[in-house]
Amino acid sequence: MDVDEKYFKNITKRERAIFEGAITMGALFHQFVGTPVSIKNVETLEKSIADAMTLQPCINKVEIKIDREILDKVKNEFDYISLTGEMLDVKVVSDYSDKRAIIRLKFIPELNYPLMFVEEVY
Amino acid sequence: MDVDEKYFKNITKRERAIFEGAITMGALFHQFVGTPVSIKNVETLEKSIADAMTLQPCINKVEIKIDREILDKVKNEFDYISLTGEMLDVKVVSDYSDKRAIIRLKFIPELNYPLMFVEEVY
Amino acid sequence: MDVDEKYFKNITKRERAIFEGAITMGALFHQFVGTPVSIKNVETLEKSIADAMTLQPCINKVEIKIDREILDKVKNEFDYISLTGEMLDVKVVSDYSDKRAIIRLKFIPELNYPLMFVEEVY
Amino acid sequence: MDVDEKYFKNITKRERAIFEGAITMGALFHQFVGTPVSIKNVETLEKSIADAMTLQPCINKVEIKIDREILDKVKNEFDYISLTGEMLDVKVVSDYSDKRAIIRLKFIPELNYPLMFVEEVY
Repeated sequence: MDVDEKYFKNITKRERAIFEGAITMGALFHQFVGTPVSIKNVETLEKSIADAMTLQPCINKVEIKIDREILDKVKNEFDYISLTGEMLDVKVVSDYSDKRAIIRLKFIPELNYPLMFVEEVY
Repeated sequence: MDVDEKYFKNITKRERAIFEGAITMGALFHQFVGTPVSIKNVETLEKSIADAMTLQPCINKVEIKIDREILDKVKNEFDYISLTGEMLDVKVVSDYSDKRAIIRLKFIPELNYPLMFVEEVY
Repeated sequence: MDVDEKYFKNITKRERAIFEGAITMGALFHQFVGTPVSIKNVETLEKSIADAMTLQPCINKVEIKIDREILDKVKNEFDYISLTGEMLDVKVVSDYSDKRAIIRLKFIPELNYPLMFVEEVY
Repeated sequence: MDVDEKYFKNITKRERAIFEGAITMGALFHQFVGTPVSIKNVETLEKSIADAMTLQPCINKVEIKIDREILDKVKNEFDYISLTGEMLDVKVVSDYSDKRAIIRLKFIPELNYPLMFVEEVY
């Protein structure tokens, strides 16, 4: 089956790149929020999140940075916390044909919200 | 802060509707896959998934159907299973300004894959 | 197959009740943390979490309360937040044979941690 | 605060080891089921799941094996699948004081169910 021909001919190539990048960003957030994280596992966690989400359709690269300052400040009996959107800075690079969309997740203090937006598209 | 002005002026209104619908579909899948489900709780689960995901930006409506045939066939000691993508049929209606995108999740047997695509956009 | 005979004869009935309740509490937390929640959907979300987790082996009842004060204080552009452990107060009632364990999840401010413990067992 | 004295004096040391191991197994399953996985990322995913879950209270070690045979058989357009309980074989080693519980998750074909049980406790 030609998936693109059957399911995606109603949108442009640029829209397809945006679409696939947005799916992956929503997926990443809701799959991994809640995961136990500390300074000890933060690097392997970042790498495995990037590797997993890069498997999704059209995803060329995922860059993810979990906030070390928040991890350093953890002061509880157990020395780890649950991953939250506030701690995440993510770029998902989504390519379809000759179009590329870079989707960003970033916590915006003025909004008190981890905003997802299209950082670049071309 | 004018969020649209600051973060979204590089994409069209139609692209924005697609973008927000796609985020919500990726989020829905990865938040709820794994949830215990049987004939007993399937209706409350469908309703609560729809209600939660409708909170997200631009989402006007979420229609979700979990496959009763698969639930009926569950034959194990414990009478429930974990929700999978194979069991889901979802429509996310995403509106931005005068544009609407309807994002669909549907398991496609020929692809052996729960495909997300733009069913309609106008 | 007699599951209890084959897999559980190395632990006591009381231990079994604790074991199954603990699994369900860990499951509940990590399945639902991250879900979009506001005053609008909090009741259907609580109900559906309880209904889903009650399907698990030995679980007789799940009582769950999401903190309305935190929801009322949400002041962002989007009027909802992602569910966190801080907002949860949960009791899981787990029965095996004539033994009952009540497992509790409660955010303990002095610990800055959502603690899971055995509230009662008899 | 002495957490053990305040919250755990109603259970034995052996029960505590079982309790903490069971929480972590329920947590692991419901946090990571749904994650995209293929032969490409399976090793980093296994490692990061083990590292994250070892942060939880009393957890000494987590051994996890994702079924390569299932991954090898994936034949779809997209060359990856969502992680399911059927693919998981996990041991969680939970120590409290001089007691150890080894909790196992294993898919049991006769039960058609990913069973969690106490493999050893001493």
